[in-house]
Amino acid sequence: MIYFNCDYNEGAHQNVLDAISNTNMVQSAGYGHDEYCEKARNLICDLCGNPELYVQFLVGGTQTNLTLIASALRPHQGVLCAELGHINVHETGAIEGCGHKVLALPSTDGKVTPDQVEEAYRLHVECDTPEHTVQPKMVYISNPTEVGTIYSKKELEDLSEVCKKNGLYLYIDGARLGYGLTAKGNDLDLPSIAKLCDAFYIGGTKIGALFGEAIVISNPALKEDFRYIIKQKGGLLAKGRLLGIQFYELLKDGLYFKISEHANAMAEKIKQALTKMGYDFLVDSPTNQLFVLMPDEKIEELSKKYSLSYDHRVDERTSCVRICTSWATKEENVDLLVQDIYKK
Amino acid sequence: MIYFNCDYNEGAHQNVLDAISNTNMVQSAGYGHDEYCEKARNLICDLCGNPELYVQFLVGGTQTNLTLIASALRPHQGVLCAELGHINVHETGAIEGCGHKVLALPSTDGKVTPDQVEEAYRLHVECDTPEHTVQPKMVYISNPTEVGTIYSKKELEDLSEVCKKNGLYLYIDGARLGYGLTAKGNDLDLPSIAKLCDAFYIGGTKIGALFGEAIVISNPALKEDFRYIIKQKGGLLAKGRLLGIQFYELLKDGLYFKISEHANAMAEKIKQALTKMGYDFLVDSPTNQLFVLMPDEKIEELSKKYSLSYDHRVDERTSCVRICTSWATKEENVDLLVQDIYKK
Amino acid sequence: MIYFNCDYNEGAHQNVLDAISNTNMVQSAGYGHDEYCEKARNLICDLCGNPELYVQFLVGGTQTNLTLIASALRPHQGVLCAELGHINVHETGAIEGCGHKVLALPSTDGKVTPDQVEEAYRLHVECDTPEHTVQPKMVYISNPTEVGTIYSKKELEDLSEVCKKNGLYLYIDGARLGYGLTAKGNDLDLPSIAKLCDAFYIGGTKIGALFGEAIVISNPALKEDFRYIIKQKGGLLAKGRLLGIQFYELLKDGLYFKISEHANAMAEKIKQALTKMGYDFLVDSPTNQLFVLMPDEKIEELSKKYSLSYDHRVDERTSCVRICTSWATKEENVDLLVQDIYKK
Amino acid sequence: MIYFNCDYNEGAHQNVLDAISNTNMVQSAGYGHDEYCEKARNLICDLCGNPELYVQFLVGGTQTNLTLIASALRPHQGVLCAELGHINVHETGAIEGCGHKVLALPSTDGKVTPDQVEEAYRLHVECDTPEHTVQPKMVYISNPTEVGTIYSKKELEDLSEVCKKNGLYLYIDGARLGYGLTAKGNDLDLPSIAKLCDAFYIGGTKIGALFGEAIVISNPALKEDFRYIIKQKGGLLAKGRLLGIQFYELLKDGLYFKISEHANAMAEKIKQALTKMGYDFLVDSPTNQLFVLMPDEKIEELSKKYSLSYDHRVDERTSCVRICTSWATKEENVDLLVQDIYKK
Repeated sequence: MIYFNCDYNEGAHQNVLDAISNTNMVQSAGYGHDEYCEKARNLICDLCGNPELYVQFLVGGTQTNLTLIASALRPHQGVLCAELGHINVHETGAIEGCGHKVLALPSTDGKVTPDQVEEAYRLHVECDTPEHTVQPKMVYISNPTEVGTIYSKKELEDLSEVCKKNGLYLYIDGARLGYGLTAKGNDLDLPSIAKLCDAFYIGGTKIGALFGEAIVISNPALKEDFRYIIKQKGGLLAKGRLLGIQFYELLKDGLYFKISEHANAMAEKIKQALTKMGYDFLVDSPTNQLFVLMPDEKIEELSKKYSLSYDHRVDERTSCVRICTSWATKEENVDLLVQDIYKK
Repeated sequence: MIYFNCDYNEGAHQNVLDAISNTNMVQSAGYGHDEYCEKARNLICDLCGNPELYVQFLVGGTQTNLTLIASALRPHQGVLCAELGHINVHETGAIEGCGHKVLALPSTDGKVTPDQVEEAYRLHVECDTPEHTVQPKMVYISNPTEVGTIYSKKELEDLSEVCKKNGLYLYIDGARLGYGLTAKGNDLDLPSIAKLCDAFYIGGTKIGALFGEAIVISNPALKEDFRYIIKQKGGLLAKGRLLGIQFYELLKDGLYFKISEHANAMAEKIKQALTKMGYDFLVDSPTNQLFVLMPDEKIEELSKKYSLSYDHRVDERTSCVRICTSWATKEENVDLLVQDIYKK
Repeated sequence: MIYFNCDYNEGAHQNVLDAISNTNMVQSAGYGHDEYCEKARNLICDLCGNPELYVQFLVGGTQTNLTLIASALRPHQGVLCAELGHINVHETGAIEGCGHKVLALPSTDGKVTPDQVEEAYRLHVECDTPEHTVQPKMVYISNPTEVGTIYSKKELEDLSEVCKKNGLYLYIDGARLGYGLTAKGNDLDLPSIAKLCDAFYIGGTKIGALFGEAIVISNPALKEDFRYIIKQKGGLLAKGRLLGIQFYELLKDGLYFKISEHANAMAEKIKQALTKMGYDFLVDSPTNQLFVLMPDEKIEELSKKYSLSYDHRVDERTSCVRICTSWATKEENVDLLVQDIYKK
Repeated sequence: MIYFNCDYNEGAHQNVLDAISNTNMVQSAGYGHDEYCEKARNLICDLCGNPELYVQFLVGGTQTNLTLIASALRPHQGVLCAELGHINVHETGAIEGCGHKVLALPSTDGKVTPDQVEEAYRLHVECDTPEHTVQPKMVYISNPTEVGTIYSKKELEDLSEVCKKNGLYLYIDGARLGYGLTAKGNDLDLPSIAKLCDAFYIGGTKIGALFGEAIVISNPALKEDFRYIIKQKGGLLAKGRLLGIQFYELLKDGLYFKISEHANAMAEKIKQALTKMGYDFLVDSPTNQLFVLMPDEKIEELSKKYSLSYDHRVDERTSCVRICTSWATKEENVDLLVQDIYKK
């Protein structure tokens, strides 16, 4: 069985693993108070072009999202988010578990628009009894989104502007940030992202690390006592250095972006085959996730050899499946899949 | 200014007030451990035709909803609810504040259908990773709904069946239950409601009481330690007898239903005038709340004399307003309003 | 049976009840947006000598405590409190239910000392890993305390100073505030209290009202969006005017203090009898609650005629019971009790 | 600087690291649905002598504690725990953050006694108004405790009995379980522990793993939907296999216990030196943590070369420090420390 069902089927990039091995018996302080984390934090500030950024490392995405949101919001405040947003549908109510409503906005491409945010905010403040409804205080977006699409710089600037204007925090879930920043057509980079939002995270779990997400906070209001919240929510890793070591290794020479590009290129190959065969896509994704509409028979046939990710039924004979590449995807496996896509 | 904006503009029915006055200096135990509450509990069991029902009294509706739901659900479980449901839009995230996601279902008439419940449940259990999503464990409905519509006995039976089949609790918010049970076309009554759901409440605040909601629990699993949850959530009234006295007075001779009928009749009068004038309604409501679509000019004119409740903009010239009668509505005021509706 | 077990056995003072009756059919806006609440809020500001105070009315004490604390603290912050504090032992974990640890301090007289606060704060900030422990951010005290003792002005000033110095909020639970402010030896008043703490509440439930607590917030940081939190926690009374009407009636001519004095005088009578009979007290209380150590036999005998409140076992033959008077206590009943105390 | 301040200063045992490396590019399912976790789960069941045990792997201790407790308790229920218990003092209120009160019991040796549990339970159920207080529903103990002491089999049996009798869950935090089970004087083993409690965890982070805790649940009531709670609380590791691989490696040939023994032996060497020098201990610990009372001067001197963990001030000239060995402690470093302890 060859896995194209997700982007966390393997361990870590060899360089990352070597870095962990090479430092294994060095003694260091716990909980991220070590020199590896310090170096990784400084490196991220450099890459983002802002020495004032506050950087912490957590283990996983849901943990990162819930920690940041729990830290930022007061009890009556909620977070605007696309219907398809990870926090809305794939975290078992982690945000509600911290007491906050996720205010879902309709979206077919996984994105939130400035108009939606403006309208949601306006409806809240203009209603007769705002205090009877949840106060929108944050906008959560994913880049790339859960369906593989990316935000343009202009789109992010506009979102950022409407958030600032209305006193809303803008938070970006970057579980697959590398895949987004190296996608065809992307015009965003780390400095622009760090500037336009209040907080975001650089995902490691899905791009070369054993595990780990680097959260980057630019808004001073969100930095205060943040480590208390990490600890309370169970996210403070005892051997925090493991996170610092990995992120330093991934980011020091651009490895993170190189392996992201690889995943996108592999997805592009598959996409071209699917396109040639006339299959439609849920949306046009330039990143490592493809959501393709296929006849059930074809899906069944491919599933004998490949693990794909079933998404949803489209009609009686057609379903949407997700095909996913990653930093670890072998081109030989892609070629096999492409051949089988072409097979009639 | 004459108020038609909601159904809690006045104090209490005179009989209720008299009952409070007449018992004022009697000493009794606190927190509902008094004879008045005991009598009211027994009366409610009688009216529902089931001596095993567990009855407690709370002060308000949001409090009742959050207490019951917090008591019934485990952290990962959520509650299915119509988009327009009170817990979804008008309780400032009270349910999320207790850690639970409200799983909103599209609805134009304020109702939830058995098919929607079946589908939501099926999608959850059939997905590859149910544990990554909130587990539906309860269905919340309001009867009458937030837009004034009512469930038929057949509709409730079908909902009840699909809930039982799938292990979901069915909970009915009866903030306006009296208005529903006395509406034209209603075929539900207290015994059928008590039998078909796991818990419901009989609303007092909006029907003749100073305040108070009587929660009725039939499912034994939901009775255990319920009073601890009331206390923890801040809902245990020290002078609990005030609730027992009021509900006993309202229910002992059918006063609750008589004054509900009055409100419906008053609404019907207004509805006929609006219909004659050709105005459309959001939905066809047989109860005390009318959601009517009116030209903004007409709304403005009426608003000089009457307090109405603005609901939402329909188009550039038209808005939806709620007109509300209650147990306390004076017919002379209704007649004035009717005249002014007819006025061109 | 004559009740001396608590101070909420009766309804309301007759004037309060009359005020509710007299306004019963007046139509007004809901949720505290009415003229009665407005008048009561202004009156309380006047009595406290500060027009900038923010006043809201809630139904009960646990509700008030949890709402204020949930509104003020971030997730990792806790509240310092005497071991005997109501939030620590008699609210079914309402504060923890909102996510916050109650940091209990040893106390035999129910009070918290400035030294305890200073020490708790110092231990937190000086420890190597403060983020692994709950951050003290508020001091909760009750005045009178749960065992009837009161704070002197000097004591409150000192507490206030240590709180300000360390960035801690000072919050006073005034469930029985009237009994405290009219106690023998008291030198506090509303203006000094309002000045020395960040928030406090004037208890109505136990002093003449059917129900109700008036929360008074002086710290601007605690005012923001407070009504959202009230609503979310289920504490926003639909017919909010009931609270305004009651507090206005109680406070407009000093009725609140007059009836408080009565309760204290009644307690004093009982205390003298107990003292003459040689019984010891848990602490020396100048207010309406007496905690007396009595032989079990004597308690059993008195309990045939009087409802007392059992507190705890002292030794094999002795227990501590609470004897409680209130605004409603009849002197004839006190005289009967006194006679029976003297009886051998 | 040589670290004796804690037991998580290094990475992982070389065998564990090798196992991770050797499987690095194998593709597997995510979230613990892989063959490595399956093997590790089966192995743990075997070692505990019960194939019905439910085993899940989490990343860290606080996360494990909060997940298990949040899953087991209803909102009004609390957990009994020694004052020194990790959940009471070193998890930033993680349990309260999930809504539950930690009911602290006085303890100087870090243990909870059956009498304390019995008494706490009795006081709750016998009080007049149990629903006004938190319901004790679980007993949390650590073995070894936070001060290094261990429970005997008899002590655990007695605790288990009192818990069963009163319907309380018994949960054991085994962050350092290996150090306890290999300590001098220990008569507990995995099968007896699995039998006597409802849930416990085998700590990996502090004993040879990069990270990881294996939670073992024997009570069927605590198994239901447990993975939902893990996900909601942010503890479901995407590459869950990393946990299975590590625990399998540690447990398959007894490595876990061998390296635990080493740590205890190293601590014993240090303990003998400290004893010879006449230093007192906070408690007598047979495990890898020593809490020794030393003159501040001596501490200062040692701290130039060794990182120790300051615990608390004893008197003007003396403090208590924790000296900690681990699976990774080098004997040569212990010998250096011993020499320096003897130095005058």
